[in-house]
Amino acid sequence: MIADVVAFIVEIDKLKAVTRKVKPLGPLNPDRYENPAEHSWQIALLAWSLAPFAESSVEINRVIKLLQVHDIGEIDTGDTMAFVTEGVAERKQAERVAVERIFGLLPAAQGREMLALWEEFEDERTPEARLAHAADRAMPVLLNLANNGQSWRENGIAYDRVVARVGPQIHAGCPALWEYLRARLEAAKLDGWFGIPG
Amino acid sequence: MIADVVAFIVEIDKLKAVTRKVKPLGPLNPDRYENPAEHSWQIALLAWSLAPFAESSVEINRVIKLLQVHDIGEIDTGDTMAFVTEGVAERKQAERVAVERIFGLLPAAQGREMLALWEEFEDERTPEARLAHAADRAMPVLLNLANNGQSWRENGIAYDRVVARVGPQIHAGCPALWEYLRARLEAAKLDGWFGIPG
Repeated sequence: MIADVVAFIVEIDKLKAVTRKVKPLGPLNPDRYENPAEHSWQIALLAWSLAPFAESSVEINRVIKLLQVHDIGEIDTGDTMAFVTEGVAERKQAERVAVERIFGLLPAAQGREMLALWEEFEDERTPEARLAHAADRAMPVLLNLANNGQSWRENGIAYDRVVARVGPQIHAGCPALWEYLRARLEAAKLDGWFGIPG
Repeated sequence: MIADVVAFIVEIDKLKAVTRKVKPLGPLNPDRYENPAEHSWQIALLAWSLAPFAESSVEINRVIKLLQVHDIGEIDTGDTMAFVTEGVAERKQAERVAVERIFGLLPAAQGREMLALWEEFEDERTPEARLAHAADRAMPVLLNLANNGQSWRENGIAYDRVVARVGPQIHAGCPALWEYLRARLEAAKLDGWFGIPG
């Protein structure tokens, strides 16, 4: 029923109110944190543009779909702090409850498809999910590199922590992107954009 | 080259600073206008959810891609006022110049594909482009219907103008959605959510 689609699309509007840790780039942007809705759009375009550089051949249409749905659980859970390592299993479980609720608003076929794609992203076993994770991890790094390390500075995040957090997944999904980013992260470290390890 | 992809993805971050006429739904959302980046994400999900209701069978993956790229020209032109009817050809020409510049940042194959999809959306001749337009036109209506007619009230937009603006394209792409919306727009009219025709 159309009304079910409408209930879903109105519900997911709430994703525009969730805040992430990076800000859109200046100078034209208002000084605010980005939200997972605009982030999901941007990483779909990033993954799509990177497809020829993926670690293996990917079905790019599925990558784009994975990225459209991957953050929808944050409507209930909020942005899962990018650099917090505790409680990952609990947070993932809470996100699963959230997406079952939200995709459950849709007609059954559409809801099932989106839930299956959310699970594929989480499981990170297909080349498509790996490229999707690479784009998801790389995007805040690219914004920070274009913005004097904004979220690293604000949260006192050390260089080694960034590399440990994003390196393996970016490398697994898109090796050439990691090669590029590693060099830029090194340069940013020399420029003093990171917090002191402690 | 990865650096070309990065130049593109940093450039399109500017879409987050463009403002549309509708606001994200409250009460949690900050009081701001939505931007075409988060809008592009939301209508991809709307079109995808509506695919079984489309006027003819569609390749939904292409619909999603059309919607990811369709507003990128607004980085240079701003949001083309939804209810302004003059100067459409000039604005479209300006958007074309913009997307040629922006997609031109990408490696040639990716840039060509995105430009072709932008053109397919604009030409509105394929079932995919028609469903994409239906979603694009319906989304601000759905937000207004969930938000006391916010952008209609703020801009004094009359009921007949909304119906004339969005009806034909929503009906062409997704007849069942138009049937649903027509009834809700009638009810909103009775509730006094529109401006006086003048």
